[in-house]
Amino acid sequence: MTKRDEGRSEENSIFIGGKPFMNYVTGVIMQFGNGAREVVVKARGKFISKGVDVAEVARRKFLTEQNVSVKEVKIGSEEFENKEGKLINVSILEVILKKG
Amino acid sequence: MTKRDEGRSEENSIFIGGKPFMNYVTGVIMQFGNGAREVVVKARGKFISKGVDVAEVARRKFLTEQNVSVKEVKIGSEEFENKEGKLINVSILEVILKKG
Repeated sequence: MTKRDEGRSEENSIFIGGKPFMNYVTGVIMQFGNGAREVVVKARGKFISKGVDVAEVARRKFLTEQNVSVKEVKIGSEEFENKEGKLINVSILEVILKKG
Repeated sequence: MTKRDEGRSEENSIFIGGKPFMNYVTGVIMQFGNGAREVVVKARGKFISKGVDVAEVARRKFLTEQNVSVKEVKIGSEEFENKEGKLINVSILEVILKKG
């Protein structure tokens, strides 16, 4: 994930990176607060565990009254260019949270 | 995850822990080799990223000819007693791999 992508919102998506955990939880809550029906938490590689934690903490601790639940979880692999310019595979995760 | 649980197989499940990555990939391949139609890769907390990697590497690099695909991915939270005996929440992941 490039620096530019970290925390970027696009089509109600939250990209997990190296920023503090609660930044991403707040991002999810704000997107629902702004009227989104679905928010997608996306993470790659080592950030996947953090992505699941963000989705779970947002859902359980902050969004239960808004009736937000996990609609679907997807995993996959992507080719990724590392610092040396070599193509490597990284795992990706998407957690789709849905209101109502 | 207790020491006892790491790498333990139960009902065609692979529990991800601190052992070398390929141990778990081999575990998945062996369970399909032993006739399992489905194998569940389970991970908690910081091991979730590794769990997704294990499922993806097993599927893409070793099991494509056996037509193994991701049937479902589940996430959730569990109460967990830490070393100090305090109950904390940990995220959990299950990747269900299915043959055919």
